[in-house]
Amino acid sequence: MVFILERDVTDAQVDVFRKEFERQGFSTIYAPGTEHKAVCLLGNTSVIDMDQVVESHSYVSYGRRVTEQYKAAGRTVHPDDTVITVGSGENAVQIGGGTFTVISGPCSVETEAQICLVAESVKAAGAKILRGGAFKPRTSPYSFQGLGTDGLALLKTAKALTGLPLISEIMNQTQLSLFEDVDIVQIGARNMQNFDLLKAVGRMGKPVLLKRGLCNTLDELLMSAEYVMNSGCGSVILCERGIRTFETATRNTLDLAGVCVLKEKTHLPVLVDPSHAAGIRSLVAPLAKAALAVGADGVMIESHNDPANALCDGAQSLDLLQFSALMDELRVRVPIEGKRLQ
Amino acid sequence: MVFILERDVTDAQVDVFRKEFERQGFSTIYAPGTEHKAVCLLGNTSVIDMDQVVESHSYVSYGRRVTEQYKAAGRTVHPDDTVITVGSGENAVQIGGGTFTVISGPCSVETEAQICLVAESVKAAGAKILRGGAFKPRTSPYSFQGLGTDGLALLKTAKALTGLPLISEIMNQTQLSLFEDVDIVQIGARNMQNFDLLKAVGRMGKPVLLKRGLCNTLDELLMSAEYVMNSGCGSVILCERGIRTFETATRNTLDLAGVCVLKEKTHLPVLVDPSHAAGIRSLVAPLAKAALAVGADGVMIESHNDPANALCDGAQSLDLLQFSALMDELRVRVPIEGKRLQ
Amino acid sequence: MVFILERDVTDAQVDVFRKEFERQGFSTIYAPGTEHKAVCLLGNTSVIDMDQVVESHSYVSYGRRVTEQYKAAGRTVHPDDTVITVGSGENAVQIGGGTFTVISGPCSVETEAQICLVAESVKAAGAKILRGGAFKPRTSPYSFQGLGTDGLALLKTAKALTGLPLISEIMNQTQLSLFEDVDIVQIGARNMQNFDLLKAVGRMGKPVLLKRGLCNTLDELLMSAEYVMNSGCGSVILCERGIRTFETATRNTLDLAGVCVLKEKTHLPVLVDPSHAAGIRSLVAPLAKAALAVGADGVMIESHNDPANALCDGAQSLDLLQFSALMDELRVRVPIEGKRLQ
Amino acid sequence: MVFILERDVTDAQVDVFRKEFERQGFSTIYAPGTEHKAVCLLGNTSVIDMDQVVESHSYVSYGRRVTEQYKAAGRTVHPDDTVITVGSGENAVQIGGGTFTVISGPCSVETEAQICLVAESVKAAGAKILRGGAFKPRTSPYSFQGLGTDGLALLKTAKALTGLPLISEIMNQTQLSLFEDVDIVQIGARNMQNFDLLKAVGRMGKPVLLKRGLCNTLDELLMSAEYVMNSGCGSVILCERGIRTFETATRNTLDLAGVCVLKEKTHLPVLVDPSHAAGIRSLVAPLAKAALAVGADGVMIESHNDPANALCDGAQSLDLLQFSALMDELRVRVPIEGKRLQ
Repeated sequence: MVFILERDVTDAQVDVFRKEFERQGFSTIYAPGTEHKAVCLLGNTSVIDMDQVVESHSYVSYGRRVTEQYKAAGRTVHPDDTVITVGSGENAVQIGGGTFTVISGPCSVETEAQICLVAESVKAAGAKILRGGAFKPRTSPYSFQGLGTDGLALLKTAKALTGLPLISEIMNQTQLSLFEDVDIVQIGARNMQNFDLLKAVGRMGKPVLLKRGLCNTLDELLMSAEYVMNSGCGSVILCERGIRTFETATRNTLDLAGVCVLKEKTHLPVLVDPSHAAGIRSLVAPLAKAALAVGADGVMIESHNDPANALCDGAQSLDLLQFSALMDELRVRVPIEGKRLQ
Repeated sequence: MVFILERDVTDAQVDVFRKEFERQGFSTIYAPGTEHKAVCLLGNTSVIDMDQVVESHSYVSYGRRVTEQYKAAGRTVHPDDTVITVGSGENAVQIGGGTFTVISGPCSVETEAQICLVAESVKAAGAKILRGGAFKPRTSPYSFQGLGTDGLALLKTAKALTGLPLISEIMNQTQLSLFEDVDIVQIGARNMQNFDLLKAVGRMGKPVLLKRGLCNTLDELLMSAEYVMNSGCGSVILCERGIRTFETATRNTLDLAGVCVLKEKTHLPVLVDPSHAAGIRSLVAPLAKAALAVGADGVMIESHNDPANALCDGAQSLDLLQFSALMDELRVRVPIEGKRLQ
Repeated sequence: MVFILERDVTDAQVDVFRKEFERQGFSTIYAPGTEHKAVCLLGNTSVIDMDQVVESHSYVSYGRRVTEQYKAAGRTVHPDDTVITVGSGENAVQIGGGTFTVISGPCSVETEAQICLVAESVKAAGAKILRGGAFKPRTSPYSFQGLGTDGLALLKTAKALTGLPLISEIMNQTQLSLFEDVDIVQIGARNMQNFDLLKAVGRMGKPVLLKRGLCNTLDELLMSAEYVMNSGCGSVILCERGIRTFETATRNTLDLAGVCVLKEKTHLPVLVDPSHAAGIRSLVAPLAKAALAVGADGVMIESHNDPANALCDGAQSLDLLQFSALMDELRVRVPIEGKRLQ
Repeated sequence: MVFILERDVTDAQVDVFRKEFERQGFSTIYAPGTEHKAVCLLGNTSVIDMDQVVESHSYVSYGRRVTEQYKAAGRTVHPDDTVITVGSGENAVQIGGGTFTVISGPCSVETEAQICLVAESVKAAGAKILRGGAFKPRTSPYSFQGLGTDGLALLKTAKALTGLPLISEIMNQTQLSLFEDVDIVQIGARNMQNFDLLKAVGRMGKPVLLKRGLCNTLDELLMSAEYVMNSGCGSVILCERGIRTFETATRNTLDLAGVCVLKEKTHLPVLVDPSHAAGIRSLVAPLAKAALAVGADGVMIESHNDPANALCDGAQSLDLLQFSALMDELRVRVPIEGKRLQ
């Protein structure tokens, strides 16, 4: 059962309201959305007289029974899109709510020269957020595992140079403090159901990008978002990056229909990562345009100054000219889809 | 090994050329493409002196060794796109070669009133080919199996009324003669590896639309096209319509990256059927636009005058207003992708 | 709605009974099972007073409402296992009903010497039915397609020599007459949803082995069996042979749990083909033993006198010594599972 | 490149040997197997004169070049099966090396009475290791998450009572110290590629059971085992528990052929968990017998004193009588497969 609160409700009122139900044995989720605020009750809510609750609390607009398993992530609670803002001043960028946001950068941070060159170049081309891996989950223990904390430091150098907000992947909850200066904390596909990590990152109070696991359904993705939101984070960004199927011509099978389904079910922004999905450079631009066409709120694109010599995932990285050409294509198409390019 | 022939080669010369090699024990495939004509040799071609063959035949431009398993369908033999024309006069429509072709109509032909109403309406909205099922492959023997020959007759009535060329699905090779007046013979997903049907339809000498099977790889789709082409048909249209995965939110998972891969590997036109892939009406238009974005040569869209009461697949059919709205969206976007709407 | 008939019901009575309901607009399925005979009504059966029907027909034992989609194949109609007998005299063999039947032979019939040698050898080792492909569905049109009618003739020679009943795969309904002397007609995985073929083979009146398609659910397999049964054939044998998944270490993924599920849902015999599922010789024997352990009614094993030089699927074929060793293993284990080796 | 050492090599010699190569820039893996000890070198080993190394070190038996990606887990390094012993005295149990080990217990520890009752009962029936979940990974944040540290305490109570060694699942590396008294640390399917957890658990120096992820290939499972081994743990047990496919009749699709493949590729013990794979109680016993038939080294079976009221996974849990009946079935069959029941 969810109660939608009046816009001018105060934090103190929300607190009183939640405690009233928690004393009765219900759990509560507070969902402070962009457009309205909601409190969701969990437990045997059949005993509650919903209308009576609305009438007796001046700051409650209305109530609704929720049947989906995802209470906080579903559109029943938040009919309106969640809009997430990262960065500030001239570097502020919106994700969701009619925008199309482009994130770019290398799979892996390699050197200061590399990350700064890529950052300046993708910024000039129109990217608004810089991605770069410092901790890399690799199938083999003998593969390059990322620069670690040194990589995070280099990302901050690139941010100081360009102003671009940062996104990077966290691999476990002992790394929380290292990600204080990262603007969006990414949870990778392999960790989508690492529930303890979801809870810990949810408590950080900063935007989280959650990638769909290779064998996870859309419903499971929403349940994992629910874990993050249930820990206090209202700013979750979902990311479709391909699922594992029998087809081997591409690295994974990008589920663009899934983006449509997610946009219907949830108010959270949904991005698409065509680079990891395809694993093939020539497919990245067409799939990015297709992501726009199906209603995604943005794309995350791997780019590199020298893909042939990248330490990781070079075969799927655009070079800087190719990335710039893709931005030109998006610049023409985004307004046609009724969106603003971020 | 493939030999590309001069444009002005005569049929008689081709015949002589093929017989020369068939006498030596090779099989030959004749691929009379739009841009050039080619003869492909199968067998132990390592014993052939390719340069000597080119020099000694005035009508041979050049030769090339082919390593892909699909000789006739691959771009090695036909670097240029195959363009297929169906219909004639003002109703002629091109598929492939820089066009974007829209096929529409009901899942199943139900009545004369229904098919004529839908045909006139989708024609007015901009569709160029009429689809309609007469023989319906259904999972259950107790489900509606289509009107059969009566359905084909009704389709012809609708063609007489509107001039729209027809496409309809054949289910087995005893039906070949029934499809004489059908402009494009469709082989459904479940029959993609019904090899005897592929051979039989390939001998009909008319365009064939071949749907990808639910569990078939792109390579297998190309090999099935090779069966059709090897029986003498140069006009094969491929159609991506979703594959079966673990995700149940949509009927199947549309593999739009697969369209990009196909366009790189083959010269044959590639269409997309978003209706069957999604199984959900609201996803059809976004996926059709995405199909355009990834480079498909057209879409096949289920439309119905009264989807709520359709005998088959109503949940995924657009009503006539929705189809018209989709055409308006495509009309804006097709030129941006550098194509002509058919 | 299904009516279970008394054991001594005559064909004439069955006929009268069915016509009575067909005149009222219902379709009927007649399921002449081993243990009892049943007539299933299809249509809006809610208007029928079931008890009244039982009371007013002396040859009707009882009635039951059926909720599964598979009426004839489900255990609601036939609680007891169907037992199918092929061959006669000393070569008679039972499939189902507490037996474990071993079918063996080469993927493809190649020469008289080969098929006769294999037939005699597998018979000596304990196989009761000879398999051999005459018409081979192959992914590539350039691969060996089988000996065709010559292959069928060689199979009959091997049968004349050994007495072993035959099973071979039919590929389309124009071949029906060629299979008159084949004891079990096999419908291959790729044709599992070739519904017109299912109907045509169902009308032949001889046992049918139906392989599960690579991407088909167990429910779809049962619905395809329903097509065959609905055409008059009560002797359908199901065969699990692996499904297509993301795993590439084996050719397909053998779904042995699916065998348990089938045995609960249907009264039809269920065999397992470990050869095609695995695609690797060393896995065939362990998987055959596992098939026994999960309750399969038998196995179909590819064997060859010279696997290294087989024209088809040599990598998964047992040589004759290996097959004999497997039979020795089964001979010990079949009684422990409470079955009789056939 | 791997060097197999003489049996009487000392730790000091191993240390000297590894340092010699580490100084030259190679990484080394030390694999102290049951039958022999090996040192594997990683890096550009083409510059090493293998024969010269063998000749110049008295404690080196021979060398071999390794082409698989999994150096420590592969049979190239360890031709013989690894045998892992847990527990001591009369409760000592072997895993691998010709034994068949049965682990049983409830999905989730619920109360002292429950875990003690189940432990005594499964011990009496013949189980040798007690399983019980204290930390439960659940798709929904609103589902029961396990008793946590209290659950671990109750497990220890049950061990004190019965002597059964314990296995329980760890969910993240902050829990390492809690698992000091757990005999086998389980890494769940969802964490199979939580690489930081693999490394941390590998450093604990106790046996690790690693479950295959729902969408992970056998090669990826072996690479994850390699992570654990590369952190110093030689005692890794693999566990097949079903993969995710399109089939929905069972919870997952148990890949028993995969067990055969693993036994060929790796020397590590391979167990099977039929309970989670099937998700249906009636399938557990047949699949356990099938696991034995394909060569698994044991099974992990969920059992519960009152499945209908279990807090977690009741539908797939055997009750105590059913578990006892399964043990009776295994007791007959294990010797036939040439193994000793543990």
